[in-house]
Amino acid sequence: MKRIVNFSAGPATLPLEVLQQVQAELLDWNGSGMSVMEMSHRDKEFMSIAQAAEQDLREVMNIPANYKVLFMQGGATAQFSLVPMNLLRGKTGADYIVTGDWGKKAAKVAAQLCTVNIAASSEADKFTGIPEPSSWKLDPNAAYVHITPNETIHGVEFHTEPDTLGVPLVADMSSNILSRPVDVSKYGLIYAGAQKNIGPSGVTIVIVREDLIGETLPKTPALFDYKQVADNDSMLNTPPCFAWYVAGLVFKWIKRQGGLAVIAERNRHKAALLYDYIDGEDFYTNPVRKVDRSRMNVPFTLANPELDGEFLKGAKAAGLSGLKGHRSVGGMRASIYNAMTIEGVQQLVDYMKEFVRTRG
Amino acid sequence: MKRIVNFSAGPATLPLEVLQQVQAELLDWNGSGMSVMEMSHRDKEFMSIAQAAEQDLREVMNIPANYKVLFMQGGATAQFSLVPMNLLRGKTGADYIVTGDWGKKAAKVAAQLCTVNIAASSEADKFTGIPEPSSWKLDPNAAYVHITPNETIHGVEFHTEPDTLGVPLVADMSSNILSRPVDVSKYGLIYAGAQKNIGPSGVTIVIVREDLIGETLPKTPALFDYKQVADNDSMLNTPPCFAWYVAGLVFKWIKRQGGLAVIAERNRHKAALLYDYIDGEDFYTNPVRKVDRSRMNVPFTLANPELDGEFLKGAKAAGLSGLKGHRSVGGMRASIYNAMTIEGVQQLVDYMKEFVRTRG
Repeated sequence: MKRIVNFSAGPATLPLEVLQQVQAELLDWNGSGMSVMEMSHRDKEFMSIAQAAEQDLREVMNIPANYKVLFMQGGATAQFSLVPMNLLRGKTGADYIVTGDWGKKAAKVAAQLCTVNIAASSEADKFTGIPEPSSWKLDPNAAYVHITPNETIHGVEFHTEPDTLGVPLVADMSSNILSRPVDVSKYGLIYAGAQKNIGPSGVTIVIVREDLIGETLPKTPALFDYKQVADNDSMLNTPPCFAWYVAGLVFKWIKRQGGLAVIAERNRHKAALLYDYIDGEDFYTNPVRKVDRSRMNVPFTLANPELDGEFLKGAKAAGLSGLKGHRSVGGMRASIYNAMTIEGVQQLVDYMKEFVRTRG
Repeated sequence: MKRIVNFSAGPATLPLEVLQQVQAELLDWNGSGMSVMEMSHRDKEFMSIAQAAEQDLREVMNIPANYKVLFMQGGATAQFSLVPMNLLRGKTGADYIVTGDWGKKAAKVAAQLCTVNIAASSEADKFTGIPEPSSWKLDPNAAYVHITPNETIHGVEFHTEPDTLGVPLVADMSSNILSRPVDVSKYGLIYAGAQKNIGPSGVTIVIVREDLIGETLPKTPALFDYKQVADNDSMLNTPPCFAWYVAGLVFKWIKRQGGLAVIAERNRHKAALLYDYIDGEDFYTNPVRKVDRSRMNVPFTLANPELDGEFLKGAKAAGLSGLKGHRSVGGMRASIYNAMTIEGVQQLVDYMKEFVRTRG
């Protein structure tokens, strides 16, 4: 069996011991005589898997009791529509803070359903940082304020929650959920596609304060109504059972690591390894303001872009994969989610050093 | 390793050799050094998996070139909304033929978005057959006619396509897709949740004639617009990669079996084994009109419902699982999808005989 060091932005590397457990019980889960893929979602076997996953997530993230946890489908992109469908509650507008392409997309999709106020944007700075909160033009009548706490493409991350003056804060946490402890009570709603820190693509987590749901836009299908999904334990119809199960194994893995404080310390260490090397080596550049740099996605460019192809080819030969930057920004990107090991990051740094030595 | 005989209505039993292949390549797909769960959907590895799955499905179902094949999320229930969002094309109403609870649900959800004409319903007959086509009150101005070719709960199946007088026929084929050859050109749109004959839950197949798409209801999100999904090869956002991959393995398994003609013959044989026994034994009853009986879901009742619990307990002890009927109809239900073997059905019949002998 061959295993590469996988820096893909998502779907992304998963903890090896989670994959090994999935493999071991693939034909017969816990003596049930079935694969998890074959279980009715109404059976006690799957119900136990589903409930344990929710409980473990609640424990790991310390989610208050007045928040619902939903397991949905459609990825963050579906949530771009579902958030305004559910959270306008009679209001007509929402504030969006745009710090990268994903926040920009979220705002564009929401604009189909409500008046979107771009309260702040760093687009003029090519998304290399977070606009000063004092400059934000927040609307006190907004239904919510939407942020993207980590921009996967640009490598920009909020390291603290902004003060939204009492307006519910909504966060697309797809690419940094579970990377560190977060005070959930500061958010009205958190959503995240699974395929970075949670598990395989195909399941989407929504964590929402229960007083915010129950009033949707007219003609909202039940399947897209958070209240109805919550009231049916995310089983209004057949859920994505297998992805839900793998997510549950990842939550248990986080607990075994010691929880989010330990994970966060490891992530800090991994990011520092890489940024410190980049900052100390003229051949590589990361354009993001230091205080706003992402601990999950590290974009960088080579001094000579003509060497990009050679860099990627050599990386692949060294077993380092998924390093090509997003087409919209070019260069390289190392995604170093929870399941990326310190050793994996060190291998990348070693390769980058060697590349400078031989080709720089 | 223990394996039960699984008669669950869905998620349901999968071909053992498909599960074995998934298990074998779970940590390292085809020498890539990654699990399929870890692959970027934009990488050539996953692209090859995705494209092969579509090609194999096209081949197995003989899908004409002017049909798009989409791999979506949200199950058939999401399609209950997406069908009217996409197919009204300026019209205001659609015809629904209701032959069970699923068709009734589809009509109810569609009624949020358009005028639904229940052109025929067998509800007064407790969904024990398909209303005579001559009695259907079809509207020639309907945008489409919706049928549920197989009703999973009631065990009622269309064995031929109705004539809709030129109005596009739309079919929720969730529980009988791939169970027999179908002339796709007779349909405007076919949709199916995966968790019966396709693969694990979490992926939904849509097969749609390309001239019917491109005009949606206002404010339809791109993610729910068949045309935009088609134009982006079902990768407008991250798709449910792992479920898509397993579906592809099931399509290859169908090809290895000899295709849908062979599958259909096996399914006819399995259904006949069970229905012939039920019809010849007073203790068991199936209420559906013989010509409309499902080859996928066989509901039956015991002469004495007080023995239901004992029947199920004994079945479980004999390794036969998932036989409890849907709560809305009671009794038993044996779902005998493609992956259920003839031997499995024979074991059920043997158990039913033994139960009559000892407890009937």
